[in-house]
Amino acid sequence: MARRESIQSGPGSQALIVDLIRSAGPISRTELTQATGLTQPSVSNIVRRLIETGLVRETGRAASQGGKPRTLLEINASAKYGVGVQLGFESITLVATDVRGGVVGRQLVNGAGSATPDEVTARLASLYRDFVVAVGLPAASVAGLAVVAPGPISHAGGVLLAPPTLSQWDDFPLKQALQSALDVPVIVDNDAAAAAIGEFWSRQVSRTESFACVYMGTGIGAGIVLDGALYRGSSSNAGELGHISIDAQGVPCHCGNRGCLERYAAPEAVVLAALEERDALVSLELGFEPESLGRDFDQLSRAAVSGHETALRLIQRSADQIASATVTLANLLDIDRIVLAGPGMAVAGSLYTRAIRGRLDRSFFARRAHSIAVDLSANPRDTAAIGAASLVLQGTIAPGHGPAFG
Amino acid sequence: MARRESIQSGPGSQALIVDLIRSAGPISRTELTQATGLTQPSVSNIVRRLIETGLVRETGRAASQGGKPRTLLEINASAKYGVGVQLGFESITLVATDVRGGVVGRQLVNGAGSATPDEVTARLASLYRDFVVAVGLPAASVAGLAVVAPGPISHAGGVLLAPPTLSQWDDFPLKQALQSALDVPVIVDNDAAAAAIGEFWSRQVSRTESFACVYMGTGIGAGIVLDGALYRGSSSNAGELGHISIDAQGVPCHCGNRGCLERYAAPEAVVLAALEERDALVSLELGFEPESLGRDFDQLSRAAVSGHETALRLIQRSADQIASATVTLANLLDIDRIVLAGPGMAVAGSLYTRAIRGRLDRSFFARRAHSIAVDLSANPRDTAAIGAASLVLQGTIAPGHGPAFG
Repeated sequence: MARRESIQSGPGSQALIVDLIRSAGPISRTELTQATGLTQPSVSNIVRRLIETGLVRETGRAASQGGKPRTLLEINASAKYGVGVQLGFESITLVATDVRGGVVGRQLVNGAGSATPDEVTARLASLYRDFVVAVGLPAASVAGLAVVAPGPISHAGGVLLAPPTLSQWDDFPLKQALQSALDVPVIVDNDAAAAAIGEFWSRQVSRTESFACVYMGTGIGAGIVLDGALYRGSSSNAGELGHISIDAQGVPCHCGNRGCLERYAAPEAVVLAALEERDALVSLELGFEPESLGRDFDQLSRAAVSGHETALRLIQRSADQIASATVTLANLLDIDRIVLAGPGMAVAGSLYTRAIRGRLDRSFFARRAHSIAVDLSANPRDTAAIGAASLVLQGTIAPGHGPAFG
Repeated sequence: MARRESIQSGPGSQALIVDLIRSAGPISRTELTQATGLTQPSVSNIVRRLIETGLVRETGRAASQGGKPRTLLEINASAKYGVGVQLGFESITLVATDVRGGVVGRQLVNGAGSATPDEVTARLASLYRDFVVAVGLPAASVAGLAVVAPGPISHAGGVLLAPPTLSQWDDFPLKQALQSALDVPVIVDNDAAAAAIGEFWSRQVSRTESFACVYMGTGIGAGIVLDGALYRGSSSNAGELGHISIDAQGVPCHCGNRGCLERYAAPEAVVLAALEERDALVSLELGFEPESLGRDFDQLSRAAVSGHETALRLIQRSADQIASATVTLANLLDIDRIVLAGPGMAVAGSLYTRAIRGRLDRSFFARRAHSIAVDLSANPRDTAAIGAASLVLQGTIAPGHGPAFG
């Protein structure tokens, strides 16, 4: 079954109204009716439910052209909070956002490393409890927790399926384990998909634009938003940009494919290539350890941006390879906009942006019909965790519409 | 703007009801209400409109459990006909279908070759007139004409944008020219997209399945159907499978990209490779002329299927390359089903099917979450023309929902 959340379905209408109040509020019921095309009774019913749950509140009145003045509606940003957790080998980021998507708390701690899933789950549970208290969120207003990690995942089951850098997590029932430990709703999702939702919300991208978020963390993925809804694919594993082949005769990948983008362009591959030229990079003091991968890549990125010849060549090659894969994505989906995000884009994002823009200008198949906007995320490191928190809130705003809580 | 036809919108509901009557009819209004989730008044209104236009008719009554017997509805297959034309360099195929998708007429003639667009337009107009008369379609019941060709196209403008094998057609206003000549509604669309719609209709694929049609004509393309609707992309140029790179260092392509699948795996590339081994293929009597490309490829395909060593190696390489690109498509879209179609699949389709199945089983990223069904079209040569005729009828059944007539 293709899982794709439609805006026209019942819960979708509620989400649409919340979106409108959030982006265009304070706004009247009449304006909502005009903007959505829904019937007046539908809008009134949905607004009544939203006021009952506290997500929306009435705020004063606007003068009307004749007739009685209209009551205006606004989002009650502090009615609910979502907590998003980005689970990585090297680091774990926790973020809390309010209903408007504003970040109200953030914490960065050491990653899962080689600890067992049971150990990490216990740590996540304790981190979550402490974080909620430290940020000062009333327990009743926390809608839940979303943990995002590199794919593949079983979205429905809340299970990570052999994530590349967290291999001992294979089939571990993370969602169930965290739910039991915390007694709050838990979502497990893909980091790139969460980042796409985060960017979509925070940028207020038009619902009529098709949009992809190219995400570089440990691996490389893409979140795809079509007509204002996350496109998940049949098993919630769409957008595996890191596992498209850029060389049919290339190196075999753990995923079963050959010549995967990730094996050449992701931080680990770039740092391994740097290891072979370490003499030219001695000034950078790279660690070349699994624990220093992110720092090493940041160092190389910084040197590249400052014009260090060897570092620039290595980062530029990664950027060119991702650009080539992005042309593939664009030629298959014919999209309007690409946003680059993820920790891997945090330092040298400008080089990646330029490489991808240039390649699309030269090689995108439908470039004569339209151009594709390429932007860098305003917050590349945290966008997946922020998106995760948004996923939690989406589930609250439109139950059954966003990702299912189980 | 992402053009994607939603089934929940107004005209979409009408299309949904037509689909249900077509696939599950004779069927009562009550059953339609239950199956669609639409309100009873909506269903009654839509059915009334469909009866008025003659697309649907009442046919007897079914006994009801208590209460008055229910009137049953069925499609009036001969209410409307659509004409689909596949425009190619070597051949032009005309097909007429009724509302049920049944083929009521077919004609195969010489292709556009190197004639000017004006000449070909005049020929198409005359072919269309003669065809409608020869098949015996009453003028009033012909809903219109759809011409499909390899992309890129401007769907809204009805213009072919520099199609690779019809390069002098660049920017020629085909839709407008044919409409003026014939005074019937004209659609211009991509052949792979039309084939996907044709396969989707004729196979009665579930609306919840995501589905791609991998199409090999002169080039290679893919039509993508998500949630029961053709996914067109921002400029109706989604699914350009032939222009995804399978070798970043590969040959430059006219499209601006490098190492495009088409340059290695499409019929022309395979026949060019055969030319280099002509001594081993002398028994096949290949023509090696632009006009004989399709026949040469069919000959090679036939020899490959019969086990001719050199031919098999050439066709197998093409199949393996398309399989590799299909893994890319699957990893980005996480789809449920792939159907192979197009003249290039007509003879050696079984070899392509096997190669793609095998690669997906080994290399599809989410294969542990679900498998992907791979089928060969029942009618690989005509499926784009049949799909084109379906596009015409879709526009009639749900105005504003299917491709717009202008």
